[in-house]
Amino acid sequence: MDSAEPFERLCVIGVGLIGGSLARAARAAGACREVVGCGRDPAHLKRAQALGVIGHYETDPARAAAGADLVVLAAPVGACAALLRRVGPVLAEGAIVSDVGSVKGAVVEAARAALGPRFPAFVPGHPIAGTEHSGVEASRADLFRGRCTVLTPCAETDAAAVRRVSAFWKACGAQVVEMDPAHHDTVFAAVSHLPHLLAYTLVDWMAQRPDAAELFDFAGGGFRDFTRIASSDPVMWRDICAANAEAITTVLDGFRAALDRLRAAVHGGDGAALEAVFRNAKAARERLTDGES
Amino acid sequence: MDSAEPFERLCVIGVGLIGGSLARAARAAGACREVVGCGRDPAHLKRAQALGVIGHYETDPARAAAGADLVVLAAPVGACAALLRRVGPVLAEGAIVSDVGSVKGAVVEAARAALGPRFPAFVPGHPIAGTEHSGVEASRADLFRGRCTVLTPCAETDAAAVRRVSAFWKACGAQVVEMDPAHHDTVFAAVSHLPHLLAYTLVDWMAQRPDAAELFDFAGGGFRDFTRIASSDPVMWRDICAANAEAITTVLDGFRAALDRLRAAVHGGDGAALEAVFRNAKAARERLTDGES
Repeated sequence: MDSAEPFERLCVIGVGLIGGSLARAARAAGACREVVGCGRDPAHLKRAQALGVIGHYETDPARAAAGADLVVLAAPVGACAALLRRVGPVLAEGAIVSDVGSVKGAVVEAARAALGPRFPAFVPGHPIAGTEHSGVEASRADLFRGRCTVLTPCAETDAAAVRRVSAFWKACGAQVVEMDPAHHDTVFAAVSHLPHLLAYTLVDWMAQRPDAAELFDFAGGGFRDFTRIASSDPVMWRDICAANAEAITTVLDGFRAALDRLRAAVHGGDGAALEAVFRNAKAARERLTDGES
Repeated sequence: MDSAEPFERLCVIGVGLIGGSLARAARAAGACREVVGCGRDPAHLKRAQALGVIGHYETDPARAAAGADLVVLAAPVGACAALLRRVGPVLAEGAIVSDVGSVKGAVVEAARAALGPRFPAFVPGHPIAGTEHSGVEASRADLFRGRCTVLTPCAETDAAAVRRVSAFWKACGAQVVEMDPAHHDTVFAAVSHLPHLLAYTLVDWMAQRPDAAELFDFAGGGFRDFTRIASSDPVMWRDICAANAEAITTVLDGFRAALDRLRAAVHGGDGAALEAVFRNAKAARERLTDGES
């Protein structure tokens, strides 16, 4: 089968920002002929249907997945194991299962346990896209355009399934990169999970202070940019911490050591050390924005 | 004299983002009749003149300040003591000196030592505005519009001078708040200095890692927002750390304790504790953005 062949029926389990955007993008690109949405709340699914994000819906994952040739889990990482156990037994012949989770090692192990002989049909994925807004109302057909989607297949993963999922994401506008699941989790612990935890911790720490109201009154534009990611979905981030605890703990320890060195430089009045940190960071940050509008 | 009376000659020492924006705003508002710019680099001052930011310029602070009725120091905090020593002896009768530094206690003490009997003419100020961009090219007449400027007068400060500087900032579009200098430094250590140091430390720490290139490749929009302030001016921030070391050390210790609690929750798999931190932070962050576009 041609990798770029559209899927007949895409089943999206979890119709929020990412699931909703994927459904919109796939329909807009003709990468699937129909979309079934699945979630726990019928009112929410009706809204997604009214918005034109999904064609029809089911609240039962097994009913939703039956007859689909691509099933994408777009629920928080902590829900994936249970969903895979529901979906596995009803998977159609030749159907592919994928996900969009921010952690890959734990999801791969959950899929291995839940899918058994169908595990080769599981193509783990992580689109590097999103905003601090959650929910289907924030979903957009162009959310993945020009962004990267990481696929983390294992040795057992069916190569043809990887090619089809890769073509599907490319049709949705994404650039596709392949990576080992454990390596993925190490990279994203540093570049995504750590900044989210720092922003959450800072805002929570300030909010707990007796002078919180005054502090927030004087928060400028820099503070707002810095803490925007602290508006991200708490359940999603709780699950990411549980699923990637080891890599996150490692980066927290590395960052803390760097912060302790900085604290020593502030306390000791070592202006040269501080300026070196600031110059190095500024140079690295500016390399990152080359090409940013 | 009426507090809202325009100044005859505004002298801005340090014609960068803040000094340049203040000169533009004051001229646009008719809050001064002419602007003298002062800096070390004649080429830079010529550029500011060509951009219409300043009327004429001097490279010597004493020559620039002589004959001005408002002298505003807009140089990094670490340069203020030396500038005040140059400016003090030439101050015209009735002239007012102010500044825009992000730290107030150290600047107040420097002014007390440098200005001697003219210390009551010093009105310490801090406009809560700015971007991660530096330099006169980034200056804008509307930079202070709707933003807050904090004035931190002491018991000795001339009340009429405070009223005139307050009216001047209001004419430039700012809301003016008065605060004790030490209290100012405690508040801004938490709400501004700490986030800048966390962003700088994170980017420097990542840039030092052997896999830095790969990490930055996968930096998403959240990382870019979070680290935007790491592009701020290194010398300015080195000076802020030196001038506010005690309050900054205190907030670094408080934040570190909060981060250690978070690390324990990640390591111990305490999902409920993590979710509580994330929910509390999200709620506080969203209160902050009520009214933000």
